[in-house]
Amino acid sequence: MSSLKVPASVPDPYEDAEQLKKAFKGWGTNEDLIIQILAHRNAAQRKLIRDSYAAAYGEDLLKDLDSELSSDFQRVVLLWTLSPAERDAYLVNEATKRLTASNWVIMETACTRSSDDLFKARQAYHARYKKSLEEDVAYHTSGDFRKLLIPLITAFRYEGDEVNMTLARKEANILHEKISDKAYNDEEIIRIISTRSKAQLSATFNHYNDHHGHEIIKDLEADDDDDEYLKLLRAAIECLKTPEKYFEKVLRLAIKKLGTDEWDLTRVVATRAEVDMERIKEEYHRRNSVTLDRAIAADTSGDYEKMLLALIGHGDA
Amino acid sequence: MSSLKVPASVPDPYEDAEQLKKAFKGWGTNEDLIIQILAHRNAAQRKLIRDSYAAAYGEDLLKDLDSELSSDFQRVVLLWTLSPAERDAYLVNEATKRLTASNWVIMETACTRSSDDLFKARQAYHARYKKSLEEDVAYHTSGDFRKLLIPLITAFRYEGDEVNMTLARKEANILHEKISDKAYNDEEIIRIISTRSKAQLSATFNHYNDHHGHEIIKDLEADDDDDEYLKLLRAAIECLKTPEKYFEKVLRLAIKKLGTDEWDLTRVVATRAEVDMERIKEEYHRRNSVTLDRAIAADTSGDYEKMLLALIGHGDA
Repeated sequence: MSSLKVPASVPDPYEDAEQLKKAFKGWGTNEDLIIQILAHRNAAQRKLIRDSYAAAYGEDLLKDLDSELSSDFQRVVLLWTLSPAERDAYLVNEATKRLTASNWVIMETACTRSSDDLFKARQAYHARYKKSLEEDVAYHTSGDFRKLLIPLITAFRYEGDEVNMTLARKEANILHEKISDKAYNDEEIIRIISTRSKAQLSATFNHYNDHHGHEIIKDLEADDDDDEYLKLLRAAIECLKTPEKYFEKVLRLAIKKLGTDEWDLTRVVATRAEVDMERIKEEYHRRNSVTLDRAIAADTSGDYEKMLLALIGHGDA
Repeated sequence: MSSLKVPASVPDPYEDAEQLKKAFKGWGTNEDLIIQILAHRNAAQRKLIRDSYAAAYGEDLLKDLDSELSSDFQRVVLLWTLSPAERDAYLVNEATKRLTASNWVIMETACTRSSDDLFKARQAYHARYKKSLEEDVAYHTSGDFRKLLIPLITAFRYEGDEVNMTLARKEANILHEKISDKAYNDEEIIRIISTRSKAQLSATFNHYNDHHGHEIIKDLEADDDDDEYLKLLRAAIECLKTPEKYFEKVLRLAIKKLGTDEWDLTRVVATRAEVDMERIKEEYHRRNSVTLDRAIAADTSGDYEKMLLALIGHGDA
């Protein structure tokens, strides 16, 4: 379900590194060449290019990209070029900083990555920041937000398909009871959504829907929309249940916004292109009656537009 | 600091497997032979013996040990033969079962393993129980105990030596303030002890001692000794600060107890022999004016005694 288009015959990484070095030279940077290479290589290939670049020129490709590029194009190229684990670590770190603080980015990372990928992000965090990821998240959050985010970001969920139907019924009833009481920060709600496997949660949410008359998301929508914690809880459940719907909505709101929210648009494209962007594109088309390609093309421009479109699979490799 | 004695020349694992098979044959089991082999092989060597046993006889060494041995000797041999990660997963699982429930075992595992080892236990838990470790711990605990145990058991602490002294001062003051208010379950206490690196915590506890007149442990002891949560919190801090002192105390109480607490004795010996048993022995001698070898020899007997003594390094390999 990756939207990435990799050429049938991929050049040697040293050759790619050399082309990138050339793209930086002379008057003005050759952005098209950068896109042509980096937007059409998978994570393992990009890693080899970085290694080859360092070996051939004794320089860090990321630093050179950082100094040669600017603005939104710079951000999408840098995020994309990082390995998925480094990128997640970077995004979460950024989300704990005052000016870029975002409980949403922390929640999204926690709930939409595989257990192994989330753990690799925690390892990458140690390596880069000399601290633990949960240490920074806990320090920079408080109250109900911390209570929800810490178990989500430290989870190592079981990923098998096994489902315990008795437990699903029992926990659907607990969720329904707490939600009816508007006890959204209840520790049992947090325990269930932060520890159960996604397969188990799916059974629990199905039972909720079948026996309590509404989808759990709808019951959580009923309440005050100004409650930031409630919105975050609802989004976490959406991420665990149907991540493509969650990401479709983030993209829709980012694009609809006056002036476009490049921060969200860049993050979603860079983190999902190699994962489930095809499903997100389907969902986007279904929900908005316009393809994501066209929506992005209408709202962005220049190299930034070209890079985003390449990553979501527009055109050829 | 391992107390394990491995012979200078270790036999081929197939030979060890064959000897073990022989030990199970005929009238009565040859317990001495089992001890002679298993109590003198490190984790990697025991793994090879299990693999060789399975390859040679199509049987699981652990199952054969389980059916051939009994009582306390059986438990120590089985726990010891497991890999450290499987053993930790097994102990935590047991600690979530009604009849063997123990918040202490969960806390001890969370606070005395390295970050990697704790994570490997979580991986082993997936493999063996088809669930996540934190899922079972969260389900079988509640209230303040859950609030403390979940962040401890899901932590992936940074393990570098870097210390932020400003932060240490700040957090020592937070700890002192909360402890003075007897707010032992305060979320800031839990955040600090469950997320900071052991090096950082050490600096924080030193500052606490230097600027607030007492060791943090002493301030926590001042209060009611019937508060089980407070005792667990104090033990967690002891585990993070000076694990050898924590284990010395567990052993001392286990041995002093009328009839000896084999459950604790077995667990501590099986889990620490290959890690820091030499330091625990020193601490035990210092605190009790008798060596751990002599104390164990006086309080246990038979094959169980022999196995424990072999694991703590008594006699030759």
